Amino acid sequence: MSVYGKITPTIIQQLQELVGDKFVLWDEETIDKYSHDETEDLKFFPEVVVKPRTATELSSIFKLCNEHLIPLTPRGAGTGLSGGALPVNKGILLSMERFNQIIEIDEQNLQATVEPGVITQVFQEAVKEKGLFYPPDPSSKGSCFIGGNLAENSGGPKAVKYGVTKDYVLNLEVVLPSGEIIWTGANVLKNSTGYNITQLMVGSEGTLGIITKAVFKLIPHPHYDLLMLVPFYSPEEACKAVSAIFRAGVIPSGLEFMERDALLWGAAYLNDNSIVIPENIQAHLLIELDGNDLDVLYKECEKIVQVLDSYQCDEILFAEDATQKEKLWKIRRIVGEAVKSQSIYKEEDTVVPRAELPTLLKGVKEIGGKYGFKSVCYGHAGDGNLHVNIIKENMSDEAWNNELPKGIAEIFQLCVQLKGTISGEHGIGYVQKSYMNIPFDEKTLSLQKQIKSIFDPNNILNPNKIFP
Amino acid sequence: MSVYGKITPTIIQQLQELVGDKFVLWDEETIDKYSHDETEDLKFFPEVVVKPRTATELSSIFKLCNEHLIPLTPRGAGTGLSGGALPVNKGILLSMERFNQIIEIDEQNLQATVEPGVITQVFQEAVKEKGLFYPPDPSSKGSCFIGGNLAENSGGPKAVKYGVTKDYVLNLEVVLPSGEIIWTGANVLKNSTGYNITQLMVGSEGTLGIITKAVFKLIPHPHYDLLMLVPFYSPEEACKAVSAIFRAGVIPSGLEFMERDALLWGAAYLNDNSIVIPENIQAHLLIELDGNDLDVLYKECEKIVQVLDSYQCDEILFAEDATQKEKLWKIRRIVGEAVKSQSIYKEEDTVVPRAELPTLLKGVKEIGGKYGFKSVCYGHAGDGNLHVNIIKENMSDEAWNNELPKGIAEIFQLCVQLKGTISGEHGIGYVQKSYMNIPFDEKTLSLQKQIKSIFDPNNILNPNKIFP
Repeated sequence: MSVYGKITPTIIQQLQELVGDKFVLWDEETIDKYSHDETEDLKFFPEVVVKPRTATELSSIFKLCNEHLIPLTPRGAGTGLSGGALPVNKGILLSMERFNQIIEIDEQNLQATVEPGVITQVFQEAVKEKGLFYPPDPSSKGSCFIGGNLAENSGGPKAVKYGVTKDYVLNLEVVLPSGEIIWTGANVLKNSTGYNITQLMVGSEGTLGIITKAVFKLIPHPHYDLLMLVPFYSPEEACKAVSAIFRAGVIPSGLEFMERDALLWGAAYLNDNSIVIPENIQAHLLIELDGNDLDVLYKECEKIVQVLDSYQCDEILFAEDATQKEKLWKIRRIVGEAVKSQSIYKEEDTVVPRAELPTLLKGVKEIGGKYGFKSVCYGHAGDGNLHVNIIKENMSDEAWNNELPKGIAEIFQLCVQLKGTISGEHGIGYVQKSYMNIPFDEKTLSLQKQIKSIFDPNNILNPNKIFP
Repeated sequence: MSVYGKITPTIIQQLQELVGDKFVLWDEETIDKYSHDETEDLKFFPEVVVKPRTATELSSIFKLCNEHLIPLTPRGAGTGLSGGALPVNKGILLSMERFNQIIEIDEQNLQATVEPGVITQVFQEAVKEKGLFYPPDPSSKGSCFIGGNLAENSGGPKAVKYGVTKDYVLNLEVVLPSGEIIWTGANVLKNSTGYNITQLMVGSEGTLGIITKAVFKLIPHPHYDLLMLVPFYSPEEACKAVSAIFRAGVIPSGLEFMERDALLWGAAYLNDNSIVIPENIQAHLLIELDGNDLDVLYKECEKIVQVLDSYQCDEILFAEDATQKEKLWKIRRIVGEAVKSQSIYKEEDTVVPRAELPTLLKGVKEIGGKYGFKSVCYGHAGDGNLHVNIIKENMSDEAWNNELPKGIAEIFQLCVQLKGTISGEHGIGYVQKSYMNIPFDEKTLSLQKQIKSIFDPNNILNPNKIFP
């Protein structure tokens, strides 16, 4: 472990000279919001918060950090769920909020160049105005930054048809920890020129360099969508239906799973009384179809109804209009927040091949029974990506701190046994790093750590993340 | 540059013990076919050809290579166009031809596990029998190996709608140069667990490790396709039409460009007299649409016809049946071979944002004029990926060897200026490595070389490739 330098008044002054006085903050009350993200109830104060505006400013900050061995933790909008933006070693908290420009939407090439501090939904709406589509849409899309999505390789409901953040990235401008500024690739759809540094950056959780510009590919926006909510008598039955839908040749643009409590708590949190869930309903699938031809969508819808006929489900609710669609999606998106409002919780981001979902869900409940924890499960069933929210409720602190980690390790071991892994879209960050020896052996971890050393030999950039 | 060891009788004997006598070859006549791939007329003989069958055997071979500093060059089917499989430093030529099993087609999860020596088309047909689709389809699909496609991140015509090889890879078993055997990821559609070693391997041209198993995602096979051949009075006009088609909201499953000579030479090479090209036609677009609903395809087809109305093109030929479709595709696929049969040539694999195609094509012709070379251009216009075949014809050896490289460098500089790069799908290998300082600066190249050193500290695996 490196011994890091401290922020001194001289360094503060140098930072002020680099980015301007009002973008260097250290008063505890002012910087409180930079001391946590959305991960559990964790809090770590940095020594100073710095908000540069340009890659060149950032480059100078890095040079200062290397000189004095100051740790630097990058932060987007602070919506992360694995603690990647927590300044656990103090030092500088780098806020990317001033990198907030959509630089270009290139309608000729269906590409856009964006700064990392742009809010995902703002970007989506800007391209939609031009008939274009940027599909990745994490639940936090109304507040999260594109840069955070790149760092975590975010997905969201539409990933099942359209892929995740990595699938839309063509090229990145990156400030390396050395202070050098590089472009990783080219603005092209196909590239066989050297190693894929672009994809090495995506999902590296701000540990290899700071992305200061991203070039995305865009696609034409589909004209229509349909949404249906399917109630099931058992969660396992709902999970089983998921892979049958794909086998029937239909690729939905969303295929979400919610346990009874997930939907119930989500609706309650929004004070939405319109959703009534009969006693015998234990889970739901929220299924979206999209495309350019309504007739085709209706046909695909019929196909899904046929498939569901072989599974024990109740009457399907078809969303009647845009308002009802938005209401259902809003409930789905708010589940995490709703659970958090009820109890101290931990969120696990398990992912397996989709046909293994019923086995995973059953395993999670059994492990919960063994270690005495309750869980609310929901997520992107179409991708085999199940969010397991573990509720503290009446668990003792002792059990929560010492027994629960063993239960989580068992869940992750089950994921790996099913050929899945321990994070589908939230990243490893700070809170999952001690489990990284479950999906990876020593050699594979060592390769990753050596790559980290190449990019960041002094280990100043977001230290203490990803690796155990 | 490393000083490599020589193959001694003792090493031959050790290799024989590892893989069996009949899979260790060194007689010059027998190993002639391993001395070249499809790259120009280059020939390099290895000292010995070795054909292991398992990852464990390969692991032992690597240990031997490290011990004696023997270079090892991996080879798939030898269809490469950048010389990646040429054993330029002698040593061992590793043929992957015995890794030829499709291990599993998982219809539940729409995934397949394949060995790298499976022929691409064999794999495509095996999954098609189950109603599934593996879209990457390089022109050499009838003979090339999946492993070579992974090494070069191959594309082919369907990439424009469905993406390239990298977009279908979920997980890889890799034998590292150290002899260790790892899995890079998990069999899942979403993964935010550590650095993306999977994508680092894809396109690394067999310089970081040898892939011994690959897990691919599959999609449902589309039921219908339409194909049309559109003649244009000028190549620039054809290129301009390309990006207009996408802007109209249609994504074809193929959008190929062929200069007059490309189609002419291709048809002649196949002795196909059915294609008559009027004098005033200078280029063609071959456009394919696919999907599950014929009505929708006809509507999209109409939309394309409407778009083309604004461009100077002649009467469109709609392929009438499967035979005519296959004939047109066959001509397109054979162009490279046809050109090669006419003259010594060099193939450049330029790629730019698609709207820059007309500028690139104009530039290629101007640079050709300046340096006195003729070129035949064709390729995947929908992706902005233009294959430039440079013909030696009456050029002097002096001009071919000393002047032409300057012309090629100018073409590549133009690509980079247009925000493109120097290879879209053929890789850098041996013949393009001296141009790598055009797309990359010193720092970015150095990062890549350091990654190479982590994986292969003794530089025994496919040395003298990619980097200048």
